[in-house]
Amino acid sequence: MAAPNPHRFPDAEIAGVYRAIAERRDMRHFRPDPVEPALLERLLWAAHHAPSVGFMQPWRFIRITDRGLREAMHALVEVERKATARALGEREEDFMRLKVEGLLDAGEVIVVALADKREQHVFGRRTLPEMDLASVACAIQNMWLAARAEGIGLGWVSIFEPLELAKLLAMPEGARPVAILCIGHVAEFYPRPMLEMEHWAERMPIEAVMAENGWPAGT
Amino acid sequence: MAAPNPHRFPDAEIAGVYRAIAERRDMRHFRPDPVEPALLERLLWAAHHAPSVGFMQPWRFIRITDRGLREAMHALVEVERKATARALGEREEDFMRLKVEGLLDAGEVIVVALADKREQHVFGRRTLPEMDLASVACAIQNMWLAARAEGIGLGWVSIFEPLELAKLLAMPEGARPVAILCIGHVAEFYPRPMLEMEHWAERMPIEAVMAENGWPAGT
Repeated sequence: MAAPNPHRFPDAEIAGVYRAIAERRDMRHFRPDPVEPALLERLLWAAHHAPSVGFMQPWRFIRITDRGLREAMHALVEVERKATARALGEREEDFMRLKVEGLLDAGEVIVVALADKREQHVFGRRTLPEMDLASVACAIQNMWLAARAEGIGLGWVSIFEPLELAKLLAMPEGARPVAILCIGHVAEFYPRPMLEMEHWAERMPIEAVMAENGWPAGT
Repeated sequence: MAAPNPHRFPDAEIAGVYRAIAERRDMRHFRPDPVEPALLERLLWAAHHAPSVGFMQPWRFIRITDRGLREAMHALVEVERKATARALGEREEDFMRLKVEGLLDAGEVIVVALADKREQHVFGRRTLPEMDLASVACAIQNMWLAARAEGIGLGWVSIFEPLELAKLLAMPEGARPVAILCIGHVAEFYPRPMLEMEHWAERMPIEAVMAENGWPAGT
């Protein structure tokens, strides 16, 4: 019988982590109520405490409070939404029926970008330069889980032309936007992923994505 | 006075999420004790319940139980560690003094890769194809936080040549390894990020990474 692990959190805290993972959803439906400023600060704190390759902290966050900017961003997303639909061919109509963002409704909108001057960072990136994006994604996942625990919805919109969004927000050369986050109160969280409920895709059995010493079966 | 948010978790569960975020570390020192199989399964469940762009679930997990494979992977990491050190120039010696992985010691080693045939998925990726990696990173962050809550250490090693690792594990064309995860019991978690304790880098003030309607100051 092994000794108890002294680093293990109390049961309720462990349950909180697994519950946030299980009940987190990519939200596209929001109520317009404002998000409490202290809560938004906690979410940004969570993001900034993500792991980053070589501790480079490549994430930058732009809070959009200007309504005109928000509307211009929404227009950019609309252009790309239609381009995506066309690229999907036979699934075009199915795609156009989906709600893919809540940009005009969410209490807060935050653009997340990769910083400029990333070429200075080599640690953990010489052969895998894209690890900077992986770090930014971990930061967003931290926000997502913290938001879910706080009862706040978050949706990650990646349907935009990054060069256009960079221009709109006057980002420096070398910076690259990777997410428009819609953050806000929701009437309810989807009981299952919205794309599953809408029969866009199914969750794969976990056995299909894992294997021992070899390649998993996949789909 | 606003009504209480009905979607908010109980305080102890919220505390668990923030504590996991705050106390998670990129671990490189492990004790050799085995990881309980049911616990490892929970971590993989957490990974598989991450968000993914267009619900594509691009993650694949290879559990390494063959000691020869593990040693061959360690040799690959050693080659790249030296190449990274040379590329760092004046910081070469500082880098070589750091412990960057615990591959030979950790109870479990899991390789995480991007699946093959990803070009079939266009939703949310037409202009940002790298969103598949972002999804995989969210999966790893889920594992990382769940592991921390369970009192288990995890280290993400990205110091390897991906083509060589793909060959070693006979991955199909189009697949790409992005992480060697070392997972296991630890004597203690670093009180602060190891790279901060070793004075490799400092955490940036949060004000430097965020701004309103414009670009943050950065470093």
